[in-house]
Amino acid sequence: MSNLYSNIGKRVPKLDAPDKATGRARYPQDLTLPGMLHGKILWSRYPHAKIVNIDTSEALKIPGVMSVITAKDLPYRNSGFMKDNPPLKRDKVRSLRDEVAAVAAVTEEIAEAALEHIKVEYMELPGIFDPEEALRESAPLIHEENKNNLVKMKYKFEHGDVEEGRKHSAHVVKGRFKLHFVTHTCLGTCCCIADFDSKGKLIMYSPSQVPFLHQKDMADVLGMSGSDIRIIQPTIGGAFGSKLDLYPYEIICAHLARIAGRPVRISFTRMEEFCCTPTRQPAIIESEAGVDADGKLTFREAHIILDAGAYVSWGPTIPYVMMNSFSSLYRVPNVSFDTTIAYTNNIYAGAFRGYGNPQGTFVVETQMDELAELVNMDPLVFRILNSNRPGETTPQGMKVTTCGLEECLKRAAKGINWHEDRRGVTGKIRRGVGLASFFHVGGGARVYRSDGCGAIVKIDDFGQVTLITGSSEIGQGSETVLAQITAEELGVRVEDVKVINSDTDIKPWDVGVHASRTTFIAGNAARIAAAKAKRKILEMAAPEMGLQCDELDINNRFIYYKANPEKRVRFDKILRKKHFDYNGNIIVTEHFYDPPTQRQDRNFKGNVSATYAFGTQAAEVEVDTETGIVRVLKMVVADDVGKALNPMLLEGQLEGGIAQGIGYGIYENLILDKGRVMNPTFLDYKIPTVNDMPEIKVEMVETHDEEGPFGAKGIAESGSIPTAAAIANAVYDAIGVRIKGLPISPEKVLKALSKK
Amino acid sequence: MSNLYSNIGKRVPKLDAPDKATGRARYPQDLTLPGMLHGKILWSRYPHAKIVNIDTSEALKIPGVMSVITAKDLPYRNSGFMKDNPPLKRDKVRSLRDEVAAVAAVTEEIAEAALEHIKVEYMELPGIFDPEEALRESAPLIHEENKNNLVKMKYKFEHGDVEEGRKHSAHVVKGRFKLHFVTHTCLGTCCCIADFDSKGKLIMYSPSQVPFLHQKDMADVLGMSGSDIRIIQPTIGGAFGSKLDLYPYEIICAHLARIAGRPVRISFTRMEEFCCTPTRQPAIIESEAGVDADGKLTFREAHIILDAGAYVSWGPTIPYVMMNSFSSLYRVPNVSFDTTIAYTNNIYAGAFRGYGNPQGTFVVETQMDELAELVNMDPLVFRILNSNRPGETTPQGMKVTTCGLEECLKRAAKGINWHEDRRGVTGKIRRGVGLASFFHVGGGARVYRSDGCGAIVKIDDFGQVTLITGSSEIGQGSETVLAQITAEELGVRVEDVKVINSDTDIKPWDVGVHASRTTFIAGNAARIAAAKAKRKILEMAAPEMGLQCDELDINNRFIYYKANPEKRVRFDKILRKKHFDYNGNIIVTEHFYDPPTQRQDRNFKGNVSATYAFGTQAAEVEVDTETGIVRVLKMVVADDVGKALNPMLLEGQLEGGIAQGIGYGIYENLILDKGRVMNPTFLDYKIPTVNDMPEIKVEMVETHDEEGPFGAKGIAESGSIPTAAAIANAVYDAIGVRIKGLPISPEKVLKALSKK
Repeated sequence: MSNLYSNIGKRVPKLDAPDKATGRARYPQDLTLPGMLHGKILWSRYPHAKIVNIDTSEALKIPGVMSVITAKDLPYRNSGFMKDNPPLKRDKVRSLRDEVAAVAAVTEEIAEAALEHIKVEYMELPGIFDPEEALRESAPLIHEENKNNLVKMKYKFEHGDVEEGRKHSAHVVKGRFKLHFVTHTCLGTCCCIADFDSKGKLIMYSPSQVPFLHQKDMADVLGMSGSDIRIIQPTIGGAFGSKLDLYPYEIICAHLARIAGRPVRISFTRMEEFCCTPTRQPAIIESEAGVDADGKLTFREAHIILDAGAYVSWGPTIPYVMMNSFSSLYRVPNVSFDTTIAYTNNIYAGAFRGYGNPQGTFVVETQMDELAELVNMDPLVFRILNSNRPGETTPQGMKVTTCGLEECLKRAAKGINWHEDRRGVTGKIRRGVGLASFFHVGGGARVYRSDGCGAIVKIDDFGQVTLITGSSEIGQGSETVLAQITAEELGVRVEDVKVINSDTDIKPWDVGVHASRTTFIAGNAARIAAAKAKRKILEMAAPEMGLQCDELDINNRFIYYKANPEKRVRFDKILRKKHFDYNGNIIVTEHFYDPPTQRQDRNFKGNVSATYAFGTQAAEVEVDTETGIVRVLKMVVADDVGKALNPMLLEGQLEGGIAQGIGYGIYENLILDKGRVMNPTFLDYKIPTVNDMPEIKVEMVETHDEEGPFGAKGIAESGSIPTAAAIANAVYDAIGVRIKGLPISPEKVLKALSKK
Repeated sequence: MSNLYSNIGKRVPKLDAPDKATGRARYPQDLTLPGMLHGKILWSRYPHAKIVNIDTSEALKIPGVMSVITAKDLPYRNSGFMKDNPPLKRDKVRSLRDEVAAVAAVTEEIAEAALEHIKVEYMELPGIFDPEEALRESAPLIHEENKNNLVKMKYKFEHGDVEEGRKHSAHVVKGRFKLHFVTHTCLGTCCCIADFDSKGKLIMYSPSQVPFLHQKDMADVLGMSGSDIRIIQPTIGGAFGSKLDLYPYEIICAHLARIAGRPVRISFTRMEEFCCTPTRQPAIIESEAGVDADGKLTFREAHIILDAGAYVSWGPTIPYVMMNSFSSLYRVPNVSFDTTIAYTNNIYAGAFRGYGNPQGTFVVETQMDELAELVNMDPLVFRILNSNRPGETTPQGMKVTTCGLEECLKRAAKGINWHEDRRGVTGKIRRGVGLASFFHVGGGARVYRSDGCGAIVKIDDFGQVTLITGSSEIGQGSETVLAQITAEELGVRVEDVKVINSDTDIKPWDVGVHASRTTFIAGNAARIAAAKAKRKILEMAAPEMGLQCDELDINNRFIYYKANPEKRVRFDKILRKKHFDYNGNIIVTEHFYDPPTQRQDRNFKGNVSATYAFGTQAAEVEVDTETGIVRVLKMVVADDVGKALNPMLLEGQLEGGIAQGIGYGIYENLILDKGRVMNPTFLDYKIPTVNDMPEIKVEMVETHDEEGPFGAKGIAESGSIPTAAAIANAVYDAIGVRIKGLPISPEKVLKALSKK
């Protein structure tokens, strides 16, 4: 069937690649506006302190300094998920990334210098850096207006009867897992430009991955109407969830611009990027799981303790997704999941590709391996036995339509030579293999009331197609895939399609880039808008060709008679003819696609996604038992992608995800000491480089999802979800020790080996 | 009825005014692109010469010079209406504005300096600077491939029987009129940036007033597809027709960018703007007209001799419109009109507001006065007697639906105190009054196969409306009027509407800004797209309000029950509700409006416009019989505008037009001596300044055109059409001499007085 497609299933290079490769692409750092100033933020000197006084008078005297602001200059309006984060801190600071004051000056150097002349008098307070300690009664209060340090959010999910499940278990495993801080390390650091126009409307040049939410949030915090805020997205140098929230630096930038009366840019240094941007949510997970004598899962129970940091950004909301790993990955009849979330004086966590799923999957898949061993089954066989199947509904009410998990497991195992006997390798270097799967939304996620995306298709008389899509290109390749979808539906070539996607004034609404939703949701919007355009074109062509509309189709820029493809006319010729005819017309169509899904109820039940993605990763590792160093030799990823719209981009996305997963599993660790980031450089914060990357084999399992565009599912996040778990299981296979904290550092390996 | 409108008929200030007033608006001169080079053109040293050799080697050696090009570097593709104008001249130059070579360098200064190092060897040829001389057999040939200097274009129109008309005439007047060179004097000089992207597609930052035609023409001359060319229009500093054609500098800019591999900007100096941009088409008009004993017009006969200059741009096509003045201004039963167009070595003429109509009207209205005198009628009474009337079809087949000419005549006359006896003023200063009317298209002009314009309306969940219109803002106020139309139709406020109109990739097709068509054509497109959006909104609201769609209307952001306006819901609230409902939707609609008109046939007959505009100007002047200086004391303009959508903008446009008309009539004169512009500065080329401007009284005659948006007609050009004629008639009234050439300079006045 895929042979029928001209654009779908093809290895089309990313449309933005040439501009990025040649330096033409303009990131926010590359933009300047006439009269633009440079903003700099003064960060807190202490993780926890009262602000006694701020004296900005000296800073204001420096030539070239145009404005210096503190909380006094701002209205009382906070940002963040719990609206607990003032853009500039008023009476106290709660973490070292707290914004105390800000400067706008004619150069970055002057702004930087001015910061040193702002005199802040602090009264240091005792800090608290561990969520469990934060909840003790004696703990110092971080937000005094609360009676304790508990964040008033609770993710409690119950399904079936866990006690009953436990009773019917032949084996039970129990563990406490500790997940760490890692950060996104986007190549493009945080950078925005705020510019008020002559009517007082704000234009934000922002790398936001959710421009329409950004518009609304920015409006709320500035006390403006959303209609007065225009978000323009320059080329975005990576986001991975880090640009999902509205952060104080952006609000500060707007205030500086408003007060200075000139555009202002704030651009983070790499060190600021490490210290002052959100992290992946660290977690302590206490989990129990059981299996009956036949190897069927009986229950899972998990309690999650989260360190919110000083403020609630998206980090503490990740149990919403993490819960899915426990409730819906493999078939489990009884589930209990709940959370305790505490404020600390650490830097706060945000959204990060996978959104709690890497943490949850690490625990679930470690325990799957433990259970398989207890019940004496091959981990592959055990997983297949418990695998999700098409047609089932998971405990959270998620309706699995297509599901290729069993095939993914088999292909991943085959790819890694699962049954090869690696015990032959003796001596200090040991080899092992491990498996881990994932369950994730693949058809959007109705976390907001709308999960929709709008698309406008305009075709000019040269046959050139413009797709105006609500979705955003953040480097993930959405432009390319949307151009392919549009081209395929219209019967033209991918190079005939231009994608416009970077201005809220122009593009129709979209909830943003999150939850692996763009290909699916924006893809469907584009596909349907294109289908409407195609219909109009066929209606134009039919009388010209003396045929009925339904007898015609379009391929490779030709409208042809299906019964005799030699009878054809050029696509652009029909468009021109109709355009320039008396009572002419042009082709403009639109569609807003909102998937047939539900928001979850209070009990976290509901079919949030129009389809679900599954997949398995198999890792082969080598562990040096003398140094404790783990090396990943090979990764196989087999994903149920629905339909591979662009195998090259899919591979790229999966490989990138695996790189992040390997980083998460064995290298990356943002070390905090009393709230201070101790390794804020790429020298000290190790990400996998090309030398660390193993061979990666990508297997695509196509289940042809009925609701997906040309059968596709979203898999953008999946690459990074099960990697750490697969590596951990491979490490166990190699050296027989279970590491229940990440990263699996040489230190942890040696310590575990010595205990053994 | 107009009280019913919230936005229409209101004095809404121009939406772009604050940005222009505060310096935020970014003209092409304000833009820079990374790596951008500056281009400069080497103009010809002679008005007519062979190019023997060009040596660019020395220029290329100058540090900072990135490329130097001559015709050898370009394909053989010409531009212009007759495709007779090579972007860089190959073997010969034909005027002093001929492009001989071009340089791109890192600064404008280096590019300028490099021009002096290009050695061009010329062999001078005899020049010819008068169209009548150009047609003599012995004249040197300008385009050798032609056998003579005749431009192969002929505008020949015949209606009725002129000889029969002449026979039935009681009086006949005959005259030879000489119209001169004037130039647009746009505040924004010619400036464009050419930028090839990594895929070889061209992005032109162009002040073109016809971006979609520009795209096509540029594609043709570069040998590319139109789909590979994107036109982005920065803020445009005036056009008035001067940016209707594709000029060599823009093509040269693209070639420089292509060859240098970097973006290139070419920005004209003011002197280049005077010397190297097109002029209003100069003309020699020999005209005869007759009247019967009752004062009814019997015939008009006109022969036009045009100086094309060295190449054919739009200038020589203006008889297409000039013909209308002769055939359709007042009722005339027999008409003959034809043209002779010659190449000369002068600079060439282009389009200029009114497009031949100011020249034609000057002749027609001078002769109307002469005929009135011969038949012994008051010029006002004579004009009313011969006035056009609703329901008539003019000799060119133009169907007059609404026509307020009679009322315009009366109100203009009343405004100027027509019947006041000014003979009391004696001595050297004499006073007089004069009238002149105009006939012009007011509902588009189908000169291309399509006269359409597309519009897309998108409404977000804040209730903010985006209108994406094909039309262009060139300073005329189209953004504002289109926002008003859209707001009115939707029942919101003008500040709720943002207008997007500057990118061919985004906006739907439009033929461009010409023929006073934007309010009418783009206005109808916007209005109908908005009406579709309104219908959708009412369909959303009806079930919410428990009412039928047709029982509802929208006003001032509220959807209300027509029978009980207190029952209402907020516009944005309904939008949000529907957006965020299950199976949500957003509002995006579109319309392509192509007016119900015809292209004229070979005989120049056909109803080219959906309606026609009429109007009268009355001038009161003072003539100093000692110095010959004419001073305009007062102008009254009474225009049939259909409906005044924005009286303030209308006034502004009419006043601006009158300023140009006064300039044309008594001040402006681009003096050419052997093809050389002798006064290429604002010191030497006199335009009226505020000190020269008279009191202007604007009278709006509203005929509520059925096809027009809210009844409006296009009147953008009209202000400048009859001014010179009205002044000339007033001068006659004052001092009893007829000046049949423009401008009515002191020299001409004194010469005429001395003859008398």
